Amino acid sequence: MKRSIRVGYMLMGAAMAGAVALALTILPVATAQDADHGGASAVADGHHGAGAEHPGAGPLTVGDISDHQAHTIIAAAVAKAVEIDTKMDIAIVDAGGNLKAFLRMDGAWLGSIDIAIKKAKTARYFDMNTGDIGGLSQPGGPLYNIEHSNGGLITFPGGIPIKDANGNVIGAIGVSGSSVENDHTVAQAGADAAN
Amino acid sequence: MKRSIRVGYMLMGAAMAGAVALALTILPVATAQDADHGGASAVADGHHGAGAEHPGAGPLTVGDISDHQAHTIIAAAVAKAVEIDTKMDIAIVDAGGNLKAFLRMDGAWLGSIDIAIKKAKTARYFDMNTGDIGGLSQPGGPLYNIEHSNGGLITFPGGIPIKDANGNVIGAIGVSGSSVENDHTVAQAGADAAN
Amino acid sequence: MKRSIRVGYMLMGAAMAGAVALALTILPVATAQDADHGGASAVADGHHGAGAEHPGAGPLTVGDISDHQAHTIIAAAVAKAVEIDTKMDIAIVDAGGNLKAFLRMDGAWLGSIDIAIKKAKTARYFDMNTGDIGGLSQPGGPLYNIEHSNGGLITFPGGIPIKDANGNVIGAIGVSGSSVENDHTVAQAGADAAN
Amino acid sequence: MKRSIRVGYMLMGAAMAGAVALALTILPVATAQDADHGGASAVADGHHGAGAEHPGAGPLTVGDISDHQAHTIIAAAVAKAVEIDTKMDIAIVDAGGNLKAFLRMDGAWLGSIDIAIKKAKTARYFDMNTGDIGGLSQPGGPLYNIEHSNGGLITFPGGIPIKDANGNVIGAIGVSGSSVENDHTVAQAGADAAN
Repeated sequence: MKRSIRVGYMLMGAAMAGAVALALTILPVATAQDADHGGASAVADGHHGAGAEHPGAGPLTVGDISDHQAHTIIAAAVAKAVEIDTKMDIAIVDAGGNLKAFLRMDGAWLGSIDIAIKKAKTARYFDMNTGDIGGLSQPGGPLYNIEHSNGGLITFPGGIPIKDANGNVIGAIGVSGSSVENDHTVAQAGADAAN
Repeated sequence: MKRSIRVGYMLMGAAMAGAVALALTILPVATAQDADHGGASAVADGHHGAGAEHPGAGPLTVGDISDHQAHTIIAAAVAKAVEIDTKMDIAIVDAGGNLKAFLRMDGAWLGSIDIAIKKAKTARYFDMNTGDIGGLSQPGGPLYNIEHSNGGLITFPGGIPIKDANGNVIGAIGVSGSSVENDHTVAQAGADAAN
Repeated sequence: MKRSIRVGYMLMGAAMAGAVALALTILPVATAQDADHGGASAVADGHHGAGAEHPGAGPLTVGDISDHQAHTIIAAAVAKAVEIDTKMDIAIVDAGGNLKAFLRMDGAWLGSIDIAIKKAKTARYFDMNTGDIGGLSQPGGPLYNIEHSNGGLITFPGGIPIKDANGNVIGAIGVSGSSVENDHTVAQAGADAAN
Repeated sequence: MKRSIRVGYMLMGAAMAGAVALALTILPVATAQDADHGGASAVADGHHGAGAEHPGAGPLTVGDISDHQAHTIIAAAVAKAVEIDTKMDIAIVDAGGNLKAFLRMDGAWLGSIDIAIKKAKTARYFDMNTGDIGGLSQPGGPLYNIEHSNGGLITFPGGIPIKDANGNVIGAIGVSGSSVENDHTVAQAGADAAN
């Protein structure tokens, strides 16, 4: 997955009005031309990871998912959902656990709106896959009924932290709409598209 | 507007099957006018939901926003937000008032996530612009404190119903992140892109 | 409005299966025959009002709306709604303020589901019309912001207590879906049908 | 299942209007298979909602339960409840999961008001019987604690999707007031009466 998307649009050049050109830089998608031009060089945005660099007594510098990335991730998740013949609700939260982007595919479960969002939040709240938390929240487990916290967590698979190129968490994706295995597969496809 | 399907049932008299008889008992009594007009033909009198057609005793047929449309609408709203130099939270709900798509532009207010979603829901819940409701919910107004219903409504501008080409409501858009004038402008740009 | 409705169905007699006959006694509707037979004599159920008689040290005896009455009331409200060309959400609560019956007419506002229920509850919680409470809850009024209590009240017109023949409150009706004047008109038509 | 509407856009090339270009950026990228199959024809591939037809870029067309049907269904449920000597709370939600109709039979549990409504919503949210979800949400199951989502789900029997004559979900019924077996029996009687 490339992120050099502006390149192709830049070629459309003078014919584009300013506003549209700006919008394109925000909501891009990779094209065949991108590959030809070599994508990465066009992305000079230098994310700082949530691993956070601390410049002395000053504030933390943290990485955070962009709307650009959120779109790329959702597009990759939808592509995977279509590939495996499922209809999914897909939610992206940022480094603060706040909703960044969401899409419910036509015909996807209504009940999965909330579950997709909660999976994404759960994954970011604890920086681990939701299914891993679920393994700890069973009766007798160390996190039994953790689902009661934070206004309701979802601890079965389908939520995955999103990391930058350095492995720092910058957000999370939550997917719901099919079996938990399919949910996880689609979420992973999305998370993998972040970089 | 009349609705006189029961008249037809009354004429079925002794032959009435149990289920139909039961239905008769619950559905409202026919008015005198209904009887004069002859029952069944009055069924298709438009006394139904957004764009709904009522096929006799069968289900309603209604329009609903597609993920394709939701994307087009968000893109148009983002383009307008960029044009007027604002950062917006943009939410789309479907005909049932359920979240269909969402995007928070980079740097847009966190507090606008909930407001954008509530604006979209409010616009669909009452099929009118949120600002119009706000004009009625002021102190002394006929809908004073309506905001306490439905888990919290937002009744200042920025929420607009989304209609199909025939003017039937198929969803709504809610925008928050700037002045209410700007929020409305961006929401309108989105709503206008539906067809 | 009469409540002798079983009479007409009784005439259908032996042809009806037991279950259907039973159901009919629960969910009846007035017919022309009722008028001929003189309705009231068929209703020997003698409701005790919420005005409550206290038999010594024993429990209170209170009146409570029946499902039979709830249906009759909703039917009357729907008939009025159709007559004035509106689409309404109609809710009935019992003497305990708990939901007894509800109907959303096709095409009626989604946002009115909650408002109709809250109007009915508000009317029963204080045994007065919701609009009367609204007159007291304005800024500077003695009940300012009472809407924040009880999980959210609605204090504009459309909620009316339902009383038995002796004037004792046995429940309430809440109507939402049009102007507050129309809402009140429809609610009153329903409340008037209780006896 | 493929979905390749974007292919068509790619072919539009230089002639693309701004709005279309924006839409392109958001909609998921076409897969290689899509290209081979030729884009537009794959749009109508059934990748949509309950009974939904997707007219190109326009809105979905979906079925929704009517008030007429809701009444018929409740009457059938009441008849069954009477037949098996139970007192039930019966709720009907529409295709959007919003309350359409409700009836609490005389003497039915107050606590079943919320349960009946939640069962109906749960059944529609996931388009399956609530009991089937409950089988998956047990400790160790794949959906453990899913009940924490959506403001509270009920996952024991008594909630059943309501389908039109073609098998498309148009709403759901939820019944509570007796054993879960009885609740399910009554709900099934209601659901069966939809057509």
